[in-house]
Amino acid sequence: MISRRAFLSMAGASALASPMRVWGRAQSPPAIDAARLRRRLESLSTYGRPPGGTFASGVSRVAYSVADVTARAWMLEEIKSAGVAPRLDAAGNIYARLAGGEPNRPPILFGSHIDSVPGGGNFDGDLGVMAALEVIHAVQAAGLKTRHPLEFVLWAHEESTAFGKGTACSRIVAGDLKPGDLDQVWNGMRRADAIRRIGGDPDRIETVVRPKGSWHAYLELHIEQGGTLDRAKVPIGIVEGIVAIHRYDVVVEGFANHAGTTPMGERQDALVAASTLVLAVREIAASRQGRQVGTVGRLEVEPNSPNVIPGRVALSVEFRDLSEATLRELGEAVKARAAAIARDTKTTIALTLATTNPSAPAHAGVQDAIGRAADQLGLQTRRLPSGAGHDAQMIASLCPMGMIFVPSVGGISHSPRELTSWDDCARGANTLLGAVLELDRRDSV
Amino acid sequence: MISRRAFLSMAGASALASPMRVWGRAQSPPAIDAARLRRRLESLSTYGRPPGGTFASGVSRVAYSVADVTARAWMLEEIKSAGVAPRLDAAGNIYARLAGGEPNRPPILFGSHIDSVPGGGNFDGDLGVMAALEVIHAVQAAGLKTRHPLEFVLWAHEESTAFGKGTACSRIVAGDLKPGDLDQVWNGMRRADAIRRIGGDPDRIETVVRPKGSWHAYLELHIEQGGTLDRAKVPIGIVEGIVAIHRYDVVVEGFANHAGTTPMGERQDALVAASTLVLAVREIAASRQGRQVGTVGRLEVEPNSPNVIPGRVALSVEFRDLSEATLRELGEAVKARAAAIARDTKTTIALTLATTNPSAPAHAGVQDAIGRAADQLGLQTRRLPSGAGHDAQMIASLCPMGMIFVPSVGGISHSPRELTSWDDCARGANTLLGAVLELDRRDSV
Repeated sequence: MISRRAFLSMAGASALASPMRVWGRAQSPPAIDAARLRRRLESLSTYGRPPGGTFASGVSRVAYSVADVTARAWMLEEIKSAGVAPRLDAAGNIYARLAGGEPNRPPILFGSHIDSVPGGGNFDGDLGVMAALEVIHAVQAAGLKTRHPLEFVLWAHEESTAFGKGTACSRIVAGDLKPGDLDQVWNGMRRADAIRRIGGDPDRIETVVRPKGSWHAYLELHIEQGGTLDRAKVPIGIVEGIVAIHRYDVVVEGFANHAGTTPMGERQDALVAASTLVLAVREIAASRQGRQVGTVGRLEVEPNSPNVIPGRVALSVEFRDLSEATLRELGEAVKARAAAIARDTKTTIALTLATTNPSAPAHAGVQDAIGRAADQLGLQTRRLPSGAGHDAQMIASLCPMGMIFVPSVGGISHSPRELTSWDDCARGANTLLGAVLELDRRDSV
Repeated sequence: MISRRAFLSMAGASALASPMRVWGRAQSPPAIDAARLRRRLESLSTYGRPPGGTFASGVSRVAYSVADVTARAWMLEEIKSAGVAPRLDAAGNIYARLAGGEPNRPPILFGSHIDSVPGGGNFDGDLGVMAALEVIHAVQAAGLKTRHPLEFVLWAHEESTAFGKGTACSRIVAGDLKPGDLDQVWNGMRRADAIRRIGGDPDRIETVVRPKGSWHAYLELHIEQGGTLDRAKVPIGIVEGIVAIHRYDVVVEGFANHAGTTPMGERQDALVAASTLVLAVREIAASRQGRQVGTVGRLEVEPNSPNVIPGRVALSVEFRDLSEATLRELGEAVKARAAAIARDTKTTIALTLATTNPSAPAHAGVQDAIGRAADQLGLQTRRLPSGAGHDAQMIASLCPMGMIFVPSVGGISHSPRELTSWDDCARGANTLLGAVLELDRRDSV
C-alpha cells in the first residue's frame, strides 16, 4: 500500500500544484489513486487465471468466454462504485458518462479493453480500462467540473481471438460491419449469440454505429508491448500513430525429390530458397533507417519429411511502418530479391499482397496534450509508433485520437510474463488524467 | 513390339556371341525378352493405378493394400509361367527356385519388390522383379544348367510406408525383428494381420530368418532414383554400396513476441536462426569434395502465425554418405555452425543425433561380376553410391551383395513421373543376367 503523499511525489505530482494549473475550483490537484488502480488490476487478474495460478500466471480471458462474461459483470459494479452509470451498447461495449459543465460539447472518450489472448498477461488492455476509471474518480474527488462530458469506455472483444481478424467491437462503432458478419461461427458459437452472451443486442446492432464528430477526442493508455521505452528508461510514450501493415502470401515451388539420391548440385530445394528469403526479409527491414519491421511468422513445408527434398514452401511476409510509401518500397525490395533467389535456386517464388491495413495517425493536438500533461508531471517522454493494432485505430476515423504508452518490461506482451511496474502504471494513469484535462480546456483539439 | 533381333543389337547382344562366352551347352546366347519384360511392367502398372489413369499416372500400391494383394496374386501366376514354383515364407516374401547342376552349392538370389509409395511410379522395384523373372526364363530358354541354384525373390513391403521405418520384410530375413513388432498398428491394422493378408504366417515368423551364407550372392537391379546416370548418358551403374545416414533432430528456441512492437534489433527470431542453419547445412554438404548430401526436409514453426515472431522451430538435418567418418565430420561442422548461429541470433540450438543407419558396402567381387557382364554387352558403366535404402542393404549381412542401377530420366523417383526408357530396362535386365552367370562360374565371389 503506497501512501497518497508517497505516490504524488513518485508521480511527479508536485508539478500539478505549480502555477500552471487552471482548475480554479479544485480543492486539491486531481490525481489518480495508485493503490486502488493496483488493487483493481489484481482483482481483475483472477478472472481467467489458470487453476492454482498466481498473478504471475497471467490470464486467458478470451472474449465471450466465461472468464470474460464474469469479469464484465464485476466491472459493471466497479464502474458504479466510481459514481457513474454503465450503459451497454448493442455490441456489448460498455460506456459510462460524467456530465460536463457545457452539455452541448461532445464528450472526451477514454478507455480500453479487458479481453485477452489465450495465455495473455495482466496489463494489455486492463491498465487502460482501470486508468480510465481512475480519471472518473479523480475528477470527482478533486471537485472538478469539466467543460466537456467525460466518457469512459470498455471496448468488447479487442483481441479478435474469437471470430478472427476484423471482429473487434470498436470496429462496429466505426461503421465497419458487413451483412452476414453476425452469422460468423467460432467454436460452435454464432457471433450474434456471442454478442447476446455479453449483454449486447444483435437485432439492434445498427444503433452501435457513431457518426464522425461524436467525441471531442479519444485517448487510450496502453502498455507499449515492445521494449523501446523500457530500454530507454523513459516512462511515457506518445504514440505518433498506429502502423500500416502490408502482408504478403508467398509460395515457393521447387521440386520434391529423394534426399538420398539427388546430388546437391541438382536440387530445386524450396526450403533453401525460402530460407534465403527469410534472411532477405530481415535484412531489408533491418538495414535501412527508420522503425519499420519485417517478419516471416508463418512457414509451412511440403511434404515435410526428413528424407524428401522440400518441393513447396508457403510463408507469410509482413511489413509494418507508419508510412505506406515505405511499405511499398520494402515490398518492391523483397520482390526483387525473391526474383534473384528463384533464379539462383531453380525455383519459382510467387508473392501476393494478401492484406493491407492502413495506418491511423494520432492527432497532433492530442499528442501535444499528452506531452503537456507529462511535462507537468515532470515525466520524460518519447514519441514512437504503435506496431500493434488498438481500438484507437478504429476510433481515429470518428474523432481526434491519441495514445499513451507505458514501458513493458523486456518488451514482452501477449504472455503471462507481460509486466509493467506499478509505478509506471500510476505514471501512465496520471498522464491520461492530465491529457484529458488539457483537452478539456481546448475548444478545438 | 521390338523384334528379338532388334533388341539383341540394341542391348549390345552381339558381344554375347563373342569367343568369350563360356556356356558350352547353350543352343543360343541367353538373353532376356525385352518385349515380355515391358509387357509385364505394363500389366503390373494396372494394379494400383488411379481411376481413369494411364501408365503415366503411376501407381499407389502400398504394401498390404488391395492393389498390393491383387498384384501379388497375379505375380504368382507369372512366376509359374516362367516354369518355377513360387513359395511364400511366413513374412510374405515370395521365392522361386531353378535347380542347379551342383545341388550342394548355395543359390544365387536376385529380385526386388513391387510395393510402392503412395503416388509412386512404375519402375521402382517393379523393374528388378520383372528382370529377375526374365533371368529365370532366359536361362531355361537357352537350355543352360547353372552350377548354383538360381533363386528369384519378391520382397514384401520394401517401402516401409505401412508401419513406418524399419518394417520392410527383408529385414526379418536378416533377423531384425523385435518382440512386439508384429503388434504395431497402422491404419487400424495390426502388423500380424497385415502379414496374414498377403499370405504370410505371423505365428511362424521365426522361420523367415536365414543364416549367414544362405546364398552364394545377392543381386538387385533397380532404377537409380537420382540423375547421375541420366545426365552422364551412362546406361549401367555399378553400386559401390548403400550410404549410411545420420539424422539429427534440431530444436531452435528463440522468443515469441509481437511482430509489430518488437524492433528488428531486439528480436530472438527462431526462424531467422533456423533459416541460417538450413543454408549452412547446404553449404557444408555442397562445398567439400565427395558425393555426400545434406538435407533439411522437415521444418516446423511455432506458433506459426504471420504476426508473431517465431519462438521455436523444430527441424531435421540428414546427412548421407558411404563413409561414416565423413558423416561424423559433417555432423561436427554443422554443430560448430549451429553454435555460432545461436550466438549471433540470441537463440539456443540443440542438435540430437536421432538415428543412424550404417552403410552397406557392395561386395567387390559382385561389383566386378556386374562390370564384366556390362563389358560383354558393350555397355558403359559408372560406379556410384546408392543414396536410397534397398532390400539389398539387409541381405548384405547374409551374403555378398551387389546392385545394378539404370538411369532415371531427370532423376525423378517416388513420383508418377518416374521413368526409365524401355531400352535401359532391357540393358539392365541383360546385365543382371550376365552378372548372375558370371557369379555362377565362381566358387567364391
